Formats: sequence, structure tokens, C-alpha cells
Amino acid sequence: MNFCILPAGAWGTAVAIHLDALGENVTLVPREESQAERMRETRENEEFLAGYPLGETMTVTHEYQPALGEADVCIIAAPTKFLRNVCREIRESLAQNSSGKLKLILTLTKGVEEGTQQFPYEVIQEELPGYAVGTLSGPTFASQVAGHQPSAIVLASTLEGGEAEEIQKAMSGPALRVYRSSDLKGVSLGGSLKNVYAIASGCCDGLGLTDNAKAALLTRSLAEMHRIGTALGGETATFYGLSGMGDLVLTCNGQESRNRTFGELIATGVTIDELINERKMTVEGYKTCLGYHKLCQEKGIDAPIIEQIYETLYNGVSPKDGIERLMTRDLKAESL
Amino acid sequence: MNFCILPAGAWGTAVAIHLDALGENVTLVPREESQAERMRETRENEEFLAGYPLGETMTVTHEYQPALGEADVCIIAAPTKFLRNVCREIRESLAQNSSGKLKLILTLTKGVEEGTQQFPYEVIQEELPGYAVGTLSGPTFASQVAGHQPSAIVLASTLEGGEAEEIQKAMSGPALRVYRSSDLKGVSLGGSLKNVYAIASGCCDGLGLTDNAKAALLTRSLAEMHRIGTALGGETATFYGLSGMGDLVLTCNGQESRNRTFGELIATGVTIDELINERKMTVEGYKTCLGYHKLCQEKGIDAPIIEQIYETLYNGVSPKDGIERLMTRDLKAESL
Repeated sequence: MNFCILPAGAWGTAVAIHLDALGENVTLVPREESQAERMRETRENEEFLAGYPLGETMTVTHEYQPALGEADVCIIAAPTKFLRNVCREIRESLAQNSSGKLKLILTLTKGVEEGTQQFPYEVIQEELPGYAVGTLSGPTFASQVAGHQPSAIVLASTLEGGEAEEIQKAMSGPALRVYRSSDLKGVSLGGSLKNVYAIASGCCDGLGLTDNAKAALLTRSLAEMHRIGTALGGETATFYGLSGMGDLVLTCNGQESRNRTFGELIATGVTIDELINERKMTVEGYKTCLGYHKLCQEKGIDAPIIEQIYETLYNGVSPKDGIERLMTRDLKAESL
Repeated sequence: MNFCILPAGAWGTAVAIHLDALGENVTLVPREESQAERMRETRENEEFLAGYPLGETMTVTHEYQPALGEADVCIIAAPTKFLRNVCREIRESLAQNSSGKLKLILTLTKGVEEGTQQFPYEVIQEELPGYAVGTLSGPTFASQVAGHQPSAIVLASTLEGGEAEEIQKAMSGPALRVYRSSDLKGVSLGGSLKNVYAIASGCCDGLGLTDNAKAALLTRSLAEMHRIGTALGGETATFYGLSGMGDLVLTCNGQESRNRTFGELIATGVTIDELINERKMTVEGYKTCLGYHKLCQEKGIDAPIIEQIYETLYNGVSPKDGIERLMTRDLKAESL
């Protein structure tokens, strides 16, 4: 099957390495000609994913064509702020040359577009109407997929059964196991909400709280994610699956998570201003929290963890006081 | 409120320290007179929970009476193999002296009784008929509760609303937050099933698998726990709560879990025989796996992770092959 993957950040490169190793026909498209040249010379993406060789059969080029025109699956790995522009470039390119084989446009991006509050798959639907869309999400640090470590992920798409299965099979291998879903909204909600909970989990780490506290927070975070997510149209099974619970556990515990690290740093006294404005740290959960806080207030959804993280990020409440407030809320029964 | 807690292992002692710190009237009852004497002298349980002072107001005695006769809540912390005998001792003691105030008999024990396959609360119901029973379960390492680290736990009981709330409030404090449930069966199922999954998670650690693999295994373990648990009469919300997901995450990741450590050791080549028969390691999941494997076969419940752990523990399949078999099963859709 022909896969065209663009651009070539860490995650896009990791998926390209995985698919190439499975024997699929992969073209990876960095944004810059110079980046493509370096990658062809070194057979490695030194800039974003150093240490993982690009398979010999993988094509690397900064030109969309002819790979995009011949693609069965187009995989977009652009950050949300560039996603809409990349979609427009794809649209123009396909208008010039397309074999008509394109079955699916798949996004690897998690999060929401600032301003519109749209999910990546919604941006694609708007900019590239008429194509089936999908999103790939789950507990997968890029380096571990590129290193062929056992991993599992969900492919949610608008494709019908047989076509979805065909692509699922092409993308699955002994290292990366792909599950199938039709709940694009739920998968996208989980992928953006978990970043806010990862900040809370990082605060626990920074405050020196122990396993019991983190396990309790994770459990209540998943319950809250499920409550918000189903109120906004996602399906229960999704939040308890790989893109919900799985990614939440990984992001809240893993050392590679920026959002968790951000929470840890602010709990040890580093100011938010320093991290966001001076160190230019990319923390998706920082902005995402604002959107979900507003939405939960408007719709009357009970979201005490998001509420406390909001108070810490935007109203000066200390992480310590925020966590204490969570622990001393009214007692109640456990429920979904 | 009067609490009588017996015997004085690590977890019973931790709960006693917590309740005493909240100002409740606590009597802790070690099995041996000599243990009680040492604890009174040192104001510490050096044998099972060293380093955590017993509050000054806590009574320590090896005599059941008068504390048991005056108790509002009797908390039993005996391991499953001694539980039935302890219940019979309590019955005899209550027959001789009881104020009639006893509202609840609460077990801290997780697991199943060998032979009968009964849960602790069921053993209590059989041996001490006529009393309300409950079980306390969640992601709580004893040392962290004794150290007043923030934690959360579920109190499932047969009590009606108002009475359950009264005890919930008495047992809750700023460090330990108690949630309420009526799903005794679900809480007990989670508390015993998680030990089997912790062995699988330990195998991952021993094989050197990384975060992605562990997060995927945890997610699929929770899905399987939910599938088995609801088929056997537990409620969905319970498995996604503190005693299900929360305890699973803690046991599968925490360094203090014996079951996880056992899995890690066998995956690095230590034989099961050496660990169980020579080192006399206590591994609840080893026996529990056998029972659930049989039950799932009889009832036709799909349980691939328990199946593979069973093959590893009892049929000589290597942990590496077991994990590989899990990763290469037929592909399918994600569902509850």
C-alpha cells in the first residue's frame, strides 16, 4: 500500500519507519529541501528523531508529488497551528495530480486548533471535503515505535468495515498492534484532555506526592475525562481504551511528556511566565485547559480537576492548594 | 466512633494510625501477647510497618475484649488463609460480650479463600451472619497511608445510605479520602484480578519492554478485568474506579507490589519453583490465576491475558512467548 507522510517531525518519522519496516511503500515528506537532503544523506532524522535509521526502501523528498498523487493513505503529522495550511497545500497538489486511489487522510496530530476549537480531523474534513478521514492515537512515544518496541494504538476513521480493516492490517505488525474504531470524536477528546490531566499529575510529582496519590488522581482524571467526553459526544468504550486510559497513563507517568514536566516544574516553584514566555516550552495542556474549562462551565459539566488546574494556571492558586482542594471536596459515592 | 482492628499486619496498622490521627477511638489487636507488648513499649509496629509511630491515644492489646464488645466498626485485616478462623474467634468473643453497637464488620483483605473461592466479605457473611459487612479497597500502599500521604479508597458495604455515609465520614480525612459503593462483588473482583495482571506487567518489566508496551498492557488488562468482572456480577463503574483501575495501575507500576516483582523475576529467568517453593514468596496472583482461568473457560469469557499468564505459570510457556502471542492476536475493533 502507498503511504505519503508529511511533514517529518518525530512522530511522522516514527510511523514512516514502522510502515517501511512492514514492507509498505512509504514516502516521507519533510517541509524543507535542506532537511530532505540531510535525511537522504544520513538516512536518519537527526533533527527530530536522532538514532533511528530510516529504512533503505523509504523515499524522502520535500516534493508532494508524485507520492501524494499515488497514495492510498495520506498521513498528516503537522502540529495543529500548521495543520490547516498543510491541508490547503495538499488540496492544491491533489487538484494538479491525483490517481484517484486516495482512500484515507489520516492525522497523527492530537489537540485542538486555537481559535476554532476544532479537532484535527474536523479541520481536514473542512479543508479536504469528500475524503474519508481518520486519526491515529494511543499510548505511543515516538522513539519507542521507531525502535520497534511493542505498542498498541487506535485507528479511528469514517471508513466502513472492510476498507477500515484493510488499512488496519497494512499498518499492523508484530511491534505495533492497531485497533479499529469509528469514534473519531471520542479519540480526539481523549487525545486533547489528557494533556490537562498530565499537568495535574506533574504537579503531584513536583510536590513529592507518592504512588497512592498519583493512582487516585489518575483514576479520578479518567472518570472526569469520561464524564466530559461522553457529554461532548464521545463513546464510553473509547475513554476506557488505548486513546483514553492508555494515553492518559502514559502521559501522566512517562518522562517524555512535556505537559507532565511542565506541571512538575511549576509545582517546584518555576513560574508559568518563565516556562511559557521565556523558555518557549510547548505545553498543549496550558491552552487546552482554558477551552475545556469554559466549555464545562457553559454546559454545567462537573470537572473539579480541570477547575483546579485552571485556577493554578490562570488565577494564581498554588499547585499545593489546588491538590489539597481536590482531596477535601465533599465526600460522595463512586460512579461513572 | 469506636474501631477495633485485628490483627496488626502492615495494612491493619496503617489504617489504625490513620483513624487514630483523625481522633477516632482505635484499638489495635495483634495476635500475640509478645507483639502487643513490644508495640506498647516502642509505640511502633517494628515487625510489619517499621518507622511509623503509633499515635499516643491508640490502644494496643492482644485481648479482643472489651474493645470488640464496644466497637461500632470491627475491621478485620487477616490474610485470607486465617480469615475464617479469625471470624470464628470474633463470633465467640461477641457471644460473650457485646454492647450491641456493632454497625459494620469491615475487611481490609483482598483475594479469594483457597478451596471455597469465596471473597473475604462472603466468608464473613457466612461466619458472622446478621451483621452488615464491607470491604475497603483501592490504590493504597500501607506505608503511604501510615505516612499520611494523600490517598483515596473505596468503602463498599451492605449498609444503607445514611449509615454508610456516617462511617465514610468518620474514616475520611485530609490525607485519605473515602468513596462509597454498594458493589461488594465488583470491588472484591478487582482486588483479586489485579494481582494476575500485575504478574503480566512485571513480565514486561523483566523483558525490558518500555512505556508504550506497559500502557497498552494496562489498558487491555483493564478491559479484560471489566469483561470478566461484569460477567461475574460486578458493576462497570467499579472496575473503572479506585478499586479497579486505580489499584491496577498502582500494583502494575509500584515497586512495592510482590506480584509485579514475581513477574519481573520469572521474566529474567528465575524459576517459579525457586520463588514459590524455595524463597517462599507470597504471590496471590499465582493461585488466583488458576481459579480465574478455570472460571473463564467454564463460562466462555474471552480472557487472553489471563490465558497467557496461565500458560506461563503452569504450562512452561516463556514470558517472552506469552507477551508475543498477546501482541500478535487477531486484529479487531476496540470495545468494552
